[in-house]
Amino acid sequence: MVGSNTGRAAKTMTLIQAVPNVSEGRRHDVVARLVDSVQNLPGSRLLDYSSDPSHNRTVLTIVGDPRALTEALLILYDVAIELIDVTIHQGEHPRIGTVDVLPFVPIRNVSMDDCVTLAKQFGNTVANRYGIPVYLYECAATRPERRALESIRRGQLEGLTERMNKGTWQPDFGPSSPHPTAGASAIGARTTLIAFNVNLETDDMEIASQIARTVRTRDGGLPHVKAIPVRLIDQTRVQVSMNLTDYTRTPIHRVFKLVKREATKRGVKIAESELVGLIPAEALIASAVSTLKITKFRPDQVLDAQIAEWDADLAGSLSGER
Amino acid sequence: MVGSNTGRAAKTMTLIQAVPNVSEGRRHDVVARLVDSVQNLPGSRLLDYSSDPSHNRTVLTIVGDPRALTEALLILYDVAIELIDVTIHQGEHPRIGTVDVLPFVPIRNVSMDDCVTLAKQFGNTVANRYGIPVYLYECAATRPERRALESIRRGQLEGLTERMNKGTWQPDFGPSSPHPTAGASAIGARTTLIAFNVNLETDDMEIASQIARTVRTRDGGLPHVKAIPVRLIDQTRVQVSMNLTDYTRTPIHRVFKLVKREATKRGVKIAESELVGLIPAEALIASAVSTLKITKFRPDQVLDAQIAEWDADLAGSLSGER
Repeated sequence: MVGSNTGRAAKTMTLIQAVPNVSEGRRHDVVARLVDSVQNLPGSRLLDYSSDPSHNRTVLTIVGDPRALTEALLILYDVAIELIDVTIHQGEHPRIGTVDVLPFVPIRNVSMDDCVTLAKQFGNTVANRYGIPVYLYECAATRPERRALESIRRGQLEGLTERMNKGTWQPDFGPSSPHPTAGASAIGARTTLIAFNVNLETDDMEIASQIARTVRTRDGGLPHVKAIPVRLIDQTRVQVSMNLTDYTRTPIHRVFKLVKREATKRGVKIAESELVGLIPAEALIASAVSTLKITKFRPDQVLDAQIAEWDADLAGSLSGER
Repeated sequence: MVGSNTGRAAKTMTLIQAVPNVSEGRRHDVVARLVDSVQNLPGSRLLDYSSDPSHNRTVLTIVGDPRALTEALLILYDVAIELIDVTIHQGEHPRIGTVDVLPFVPIRNVSMDDCVTLAKQFGNTVANRYGIPVYLYECAATRPERRALESIRRGQLEGLTERMNKGTWQPDFGPSSPHPTAGASAIGARTTLIAFNVNLETDDMEIASQIARTVRTRDGGLPHVKAIPVRLIDQTRVQVSMNLTDYTRTPIHRVFKLVKREATKRGVKIAESELVGLIPAEALIASAVSTLKITKFRPDQVLDAQIAEWDADLAGSLSGER
């Protein structure tokens, strides 16, 4: 599966996406060190990063072939472990470790099984190299009750530690107690996820909590939606912070409409929304098509997609692809 | 400017888009012949076509380098002239010729000036080869009063013929009377245009006319919008048929909202909307971003765009580009 792209057209290159969530979003110098560490590495590319001081968290998006991606992520772990002590970390977003969560996502010429394999290989490496307990989640989970990230991080690092001490939550790799400063890591494989937050024109956390419960799957809301209430760092607004885990079935505009309706019911306005990290073009395009009532839209009406496809065909025919 | 792509990475290829509008949208066999004629030609690609029986018109989108595009378009003219007599053509959409309108649009590694040059070269060729009067329009226009397509086709072919007979509207190329069956052609250069139609839940043409006037630039509506009322062929609905000539300044959702507001005022519902031909991804993405209130959106948050850019960088570095 691993391949070098020398002498082959770019389009044929295997691409996996990794989205490490690191527990630091306030100290700019630390964020800069993290970002610098994974920039300009051969065979991988940092496509995006975003830091949030309320969440106290930085989300990076890196793509590459499996080997190059592994190299980049180990460098990131090195730097994060050196600079961040998760036991003194505080933020609105729950966390279990310095490198808190790390999903692998198939992008091109690669299957979910390949990503599961990589998650396991990489999880094993992290456990051995740093002595960090690693929990496999989502498609890489080894037991049904560990599929959901929320289950692993129930009670955050402190809660997980307690469960480890009781012997009820042994990690998939590594020691059965947390690393003294880096905690634990959840490493998994999943499909594309959209991190979408809606900020409300109120400082009332109870309203954000009610809306989060109405929207999220767990409490009978929309399918494929996770939601938590978050107090924003400026203290004047609250946020419904969401993960949309299948935008093809629960599109982003449906989620937005429901949040808006629930806010309006309570006399609260939407201040603004926010996308964290990257989003596939088709998720936004589908939203526009629905709002504009374009009933007979065909994805091949998107000019850029058509030209990219032609490029790919030409690249394939030029490269003598195997 | 003209280049062959052999041995070069696809991304570096010069790309111009041509969007011939042909006056036939009812006879399926003729449409099939038109489409077949420009499919699978070397160096150009038919990206899209759509036929509309109400408009009695087929819009094709072809991209390629200037030389290959010229070859494809001459083949299309050959077939269209053989099969279509515009003097007996009837449809809701105004027309002046068999190949009614032909704009060239810059796509990649090419300027508007290059497209103007190509419009003039190709216009001259059409006039000489077929004896068709050619009017240059938009960026290729030779006089200010010919920039707008509406001015050229005022009164359709019949009105234009009258003006030609009076000697007031000589063509830029070709004879000063229309071709006996192919009429005239407007050939030009312009930026990307979005053909966007909104169908109303009414058969009242007066309502479509009123809304078209409210929306279009000419009558004091939104900037960069052309609009005409069209009766749909099933006779139960009418349409506001629009061209958005600068979607970066007047985005598609703003147009939709105004049409909807005007329809609602008159107690009429929107049945559906329709995109004719292709649309740049960013036009739909901008619409979604606005509707979802994503205030701090960055275009580089679109995953596909980022990956395409990386591909392009790699393709460039592999190809030994000059």
